[in-house]
Amino acid sequence: MHEKIATIEDVARHAGVSIATVSRALHKPDVVSQTTREKVQAAIATTGYTANVMARNLRLNRSGMILLLVPDIGNPFFSAILSGIEQGASKAGYNVLIGDTQNDPDREATYAAYLRSNQADAMILLNGRLPAPLANSPANATPPVVIACERIPGCGLPTVIIDNEQAAFEATTHLINHGHRKIANVAGPDNNILTVDRTAGYRRALSEHGIAIDPKLTFVGDYSIDAGIAAGRSLLADAKTRPTGLFCASDGMAIGVIVAAKELGLRVPEDVSVFGFDDIHLAAAYDPPLTTVRQPRRRLGEQAITLLLDRLDPKTPNKTGKTDPVIVPTELIIRQSTGPCPQG
Amino acid sequence: MHEKIATIEDVARHAGVSIATVSRALHKPDVVSQTTREKVQAAIATTGYTANVMARNLRLNRSGMILLLVPDIGNPFFSAILSGIEQGASKAGYNVLIGDTQNDPDREATYAAYLRSNQADAMILLNGRLPAPLANSPANATPPVVIACERIPGCGLPTVIIDNEQAAFEATTHLINHGHRKIANVAGPDNNILTVDRTAGYRRALSEHGIAIDPKLTFVGDYSIDAGIAAGRSLLADAKTRPTGLFCASDGMAIGVIVAAKELGLRVPEDVSVFGFDDIHLAAAYDPPLTTVRQPRRRLGEQAITLLLDRLDPKTPNKTGKTDPVIVPTELIIRQSTGPCPQG
Repeated sequence: MHEKIATIEDVARHAGVSIATVSRALHKPDVVSQTTREKVQAAIATTGYTANVMARNLRLNRSGMILLLVPDIGNPFFSAILSGIEQGASKAGYNVLIGDTQNDPDREATYAAYLRSNQADAMILLNGRLPAPLANSPANATPPVVIACERIPGCGLPTVIIDNEQAAFEATTHLINHGHRKIANVAGPDNNILTVDRTAGYRRALSEHGIAIDPKLTFVGDYSIDAGIAAGRSLLADAKTRPTGLFCASDGMAIGVIVAAKELGLRVPEDVSVFGFDDIHLAAAYDPPLTTVRQPRRRLGEQAITLLLDRLDPKTPNKTGKTDPVIVPTELIIRQSTGPCPQG
Repeated sequence: MHEKIATIEDVARHAGVSIATVSRALHKPDVVSQTTREKVQAAIATTGYTANVMARNLRLNRSGMILLLVPDIGNPFFSAILSGIEQGASKAGYNVLIGDTQNDPDREATYAAYLRSNQADAMILLNGRLPAPLANSPANATPPVVIACERIPGCGLPTVIIDNEQAAFEATTHLINHGHRKIANVAGPDNNILTVDRTAGYRRALSEHGIAIDPKLTFVGDYSIDAGIAAGRSLLADAKTRPTGLFCASDGMAIGVIVAAKELGLRVPEDVSVFGFDDIHLAAAYDPPLTTVRQPRRRLGEQAITLLLDRLDPKTPNKTGKTDPVIVPTELIIRQSTGPCPQG
């Protein structure tokens, strides 16, 4: 049923040259005559022989593939990270295959098995959890794995993250500096390390300014627009208890909060200030344009693939040693969804 | 360097049973005692043996992987399609690996080579172009390939699409029925089959209502928000030539047009009506909520994986025959970005 895969022998036969000549034409073209190179190229085209990557990978006993596990490919947050990873991988002769785990441990385990059977050479995890088959292995016994975006406490693998605590601290401080005192925390899922870190930063900012933490001003969401709408409806409906500022753990939730605020007849930022997180592509095109924490997403991806290629390089010494996480700096992007406290 | 991969022998040794017993426990658990099943399960957990998928795939001489080529994983349009594909694949015991081609023919070719070397069992193309190594092969000689979203004229492979011409016709007709006569076409890239089909539908609607086609009212974009902003600035700046309605080939471009309209002090829909395409998740949360063509994206994905699994099933007869494309119906979603023509 499957078409026969063309071999280097097929190319040699079609070109009317020896296998050694085909190999030289592919790997040391400068030592082969122009005529021979052209004959070999024509034969490659005819046979469909895929020398460039597959053959080299076979020779190097590698798959040439890097596996990238993402918790939800539908989240636009990941696109620029993927782009940074793919560019770096591509330059080094690797291709990236993306597995969408949907936060499902079974799917994570299946993809990790693909890695362990050497159908991929290395893995980058964006999902904040070690797949079960890896969790039992010491860090130095698996094919190279790099963690990005969500740190995994105690796992010891190379990690690239932003400083979520500091970013949340700065965003909340910005609201405080604009006179806001009643500031809500529209947080991510409870069990998530990002939530732990960002909530810690939000609380530190309040504490440093002597503002008491009101647990009624925290809403637990899942980063989605719908969660933001629910948060806005719940937190903003009652004029007496309403916060004047909301720090949201994603731009999606910030957009949802603004939708709910408008439903309630509230103006953003005149009546209520909304701070997002991520700086997704649409943040600048929203109405009002979102004030947010910019995650340097492409740089996160670039750093992750750099760390991984370093581990894949046989010349790198001490590749199993524990390393401190690489911290990529964030930036506050002040647009029009935040302003002075109306009661200020 | 790599950890040794656990074999069925390792499981048998750990469980203190024979290999045949392990195999029975895995494949015919009902013929094995409860105690034995538990011993085997414990041994699988200890050794990290990945029997469920990898072993079965080895036995069936398949990789268990379906390769999905996407032109731009950053486009939120694709997420629900992927989700539909992954759900169907998962039920049939397949995993999906996504390759982001970035519209680069070299990347397409490299991923296709991965398929031809049987590291994946089948492929779904969302990118509207046959990778070079497949383009030369007759449809019945490759591992199964299914086309979704963008038809490839004349390629003969099973295809799942929406009727882009009809959808564009209906959207444009909706604007005409609301009194609009000066209607712009904010189109996708010139060389794209989607653009050809949607522009044909836009023109048919104008023709059927006796409205002359004004080439100055067409703007060629790339589906992005930025292209929409450029289109809006270019088409809406001059009050004398300004269209009152714009049919946009993506929600991203519709959002960009609205950003530009607001910059120019125009109200949507009071001064100008903007029609999108896709119904991305954010369309309903935008201000104003977008009127758009809903693509049944999850169903597109489900239909594509159904066609593919059918081709993978050895019991399916006549699997190399040409088939008509499967057309998944679209739906007009009328929200607040369109209204009556202000001059009507």
